[in-house]
Amino acid sequence: MEIKSYRKDLFYSYTLGAFPTIELLKKHQKDVIKILVHSSFHNEEVLSLIHSLRKDTEIQINDKLISKLSNKENCYLAAVFNKYQMTLNPNKNHIVLVNPMNMGNFGTIIRSALGFGFTDIAVIKPAIDIFDPKVLRAAMGSFFSSNIVYFNTIEEYKALYPDHKLHSFMLQAKKTLQETEFESTPLSLVFGNESSGLPENYLDDNSIIIKHSNDIDSLNLPTAVGIALYEVDKQLKKR
Amino acid sequence: MEIKSYRKDLFYSYTLGAFPTIELLKKHQKDVIKILVHSSFHNEEVLSLIHSLRKDTEIQINDKLISKLSNKENCYLAAVFNKYQMTLNPNKNHIVLVNPMNMGNFGTIIRSALGFGFTDIAVIKPAIDIFDPKVLRAAMGSFFSSNIVYFNTIEEYKALYPDHKLHSFMLQAKKTLQETEFESTPLSLVFGNESSGLPENYLDDNSIIIKHSNDIDSLNLPTAVGIALYEVDKQLKKR
Repeated sequence: MEIKSYRKDLFYSYTLGAFPTIELLKKHQKDVIKILVHSSFHNEEVLSLIHSLRKDTEIQINDKLISKLSNKENCYLAAVFNKYQMTLNPNKNHIVLVNPMNMGNFGTIIRSALGFGFTDIAVIKPAIDIFDPKVLRAAMGSFFSSNIVYFNTIEEYKALYPDHKLHSFMLQAKKTLQETEFESTPLSLVFGNESSGLPENYLDDNSIIIKHSNDIDSLNLPTAVGIALYEVDKQLKKR
Repeated sequence: MEIKSYRKDLFYSYTLGAFPTIELLKKHQKDVIKILVHSSFHNEEVLSLIHSLRKDTEIQINDKLISKLSNKENCYLAAVFNKYQMTLNPNKNHIVLVNPMNMGNFGTIIRSALGFGFTDIAVIKPAIDIFDPKVLRAAMGSFFSSNIVYFNTIEEYKALYPDHKLHSFMLQAKKTLQETEFESTPLSLVFGNESSGLPENYLDDNSIIIKHSNDIDSLNLPTAVGIALYEVDKQLKKR
């Protein structure tokens, strides 16, 4: 099987670098197609960990393929894996990202989310390709601990998770995050696209604005999500 | 005068795009060398604002130069300006960034900082070039409302601002942001490099960790700074 540079329509993707490759093996070993090691990689600790996690997965020394997949960046360890299906946990709090379009931002959000115990992320289309290696790189391994599921519309998401109380983050909201008390769970924190935010029809009594000075138009998306996660996590842990 | 593509040793830099160009003219009109307009730019509202702000600054229609400075990205408005000196306000709270190395992160931090009323940023060398157009782009105009000053060492900074209480953000800290009460101002929020964090000698009783799950190594730097700014701003506004 010839491994090609990433395209959305391929049935596989790949990790680049030791940390995400180890996380992939820990969480989704059965989906791994092959592990790629560069001939100049001799970190015994990492190699022994890889061997203990791989079970029957093939390990291949293939400098040319690693160079191709990583666009010639310094990369010594990689793994090719089958894209797998995920499902959201109906009992956990969710993040809902509406039309996210920046892969680095998306990966950074997955990382922050896992840091505050949010493992379940709904993505409303159109959106970036969640399995793109650029997403995996920005997520720094956290991707493989998360459940990320596409929905065609927010209505489709709501119909499947009717018990989740939705809080849409938007500049038009009247309630500030600073004064909001999060009481009922499960809840969903909903964020819009990087440039345009959420459409006006998301505005309701549960909408929230992260109050900031008028000197800036808005906070950057991963920062806004990080702040919301911090506040919600802090409150829920106090109860 | 021939305008060259950006290099650190040039005495000038430039904004790309309408929003940062307008902010530059509003805050630092006297430092602007010339305004560049693309021949196909006909937004009357923006052009009239530019004319009202420019005073005696030259406006030049120069598609070739805009194309060169913006690396052929779609850009219709730009301004070349003299790099100017800034000073930190001794009575305001500061952010201190130790060895920041990512220009996009640095710009994003300036934007969040301004959003929470922090206009004064100390940068401990070695560090990115604060005037690089990549910083200005990520800062989205907020750069021109901020005071950003280099220091060779943290000791040099402390000697100049002896009244500031320093809070160093580091994973080794015992006190969590979630339980910290910020009482005395002026204060300085100190953050380390993207990869390595702060050196151990920054650790003291005022050090703070943003508590997160063990499933991630750390939060991304702009996210961590955003969360700290949010919490401090919220507490100081309540007093």
